Amino acid sequence: MTIFERIILRQIPADIVFEDDELIAFRDIEPKAPVHILLVPKRHIANINELKETDTLMIGRLVLRASEIARTEGIAESGYRLVINCNRDGGQSVDHVHVHILGGRPMKWPPG
Amino acid sequence: MTIFERIILRQIPADIVFEDDELIAFRDIEPKAPVHILLVPKRHIANINELKETDTLMIGRLVLRASEIARTEGIAESGYRLVINCNRDGGQSVDHVHVHILGGRPMKWPPG
Repeated sequence: MTIFERIILRQIPADIVFEDDELIAFRDIEPKAPVHILLVPKRHIANINELKETDTLMIGRLVLRASEIARTEGIAESGYRLVINCNRDGGQSVDHVHVHILGGRPMKWPPG
Repeated sequence: MTIFERIILRQIPADIVFEDDELIAFRDIEPKAPVHILLVPKRHIANINELKETDTLMIGRLVLRASEIARTEGIAESGYRLVINCNRDGGQSVDHVHVHILGGRPMKWPPG
């Protein structure tokens, strides 16, 4: 079980900013920007290579929800970056699909 | 009209790696990794704050297509990073929704 599943099950604490039946969002414990939130599908999917066509709507809702969270956090107009890492070269550190929402400062280029 | 719309209309050249009725993908002209591709909805949407609920399936297909392009490019297993920038702090440089697909080297952290 990954750390994200343990957060979903309330086995370990997290600063949760959004939750519904399908998705959960909480603040990164090692934030790299003033706003740094992880948005996660509750169902376990190891990485985005594992997505199936039946996941299309869920992943679409994930992206729309990320922009709604940015609005709630007050960074929608100033700007933000969404990042999805896949496997080792991508820098994926937890084997459960998640999107990073980063903002509250100018994000630099290249993105890592 | 943005540079992406001019690429879609074949008014300026690009190294196109994928195209269907809804999406187009081409190599970034200032690549920040051995593989650096931009995947773009053909319909003009300025940024991800402008997405509507009716765009959910399209955005889901965009993410699934990004992972398929990573597979075609041979970076799915080694790993890659997807990046969507929104507005100034996000580093968005073209006012038309696009996802960066970066791989072929270890991506660093933080992501910019």
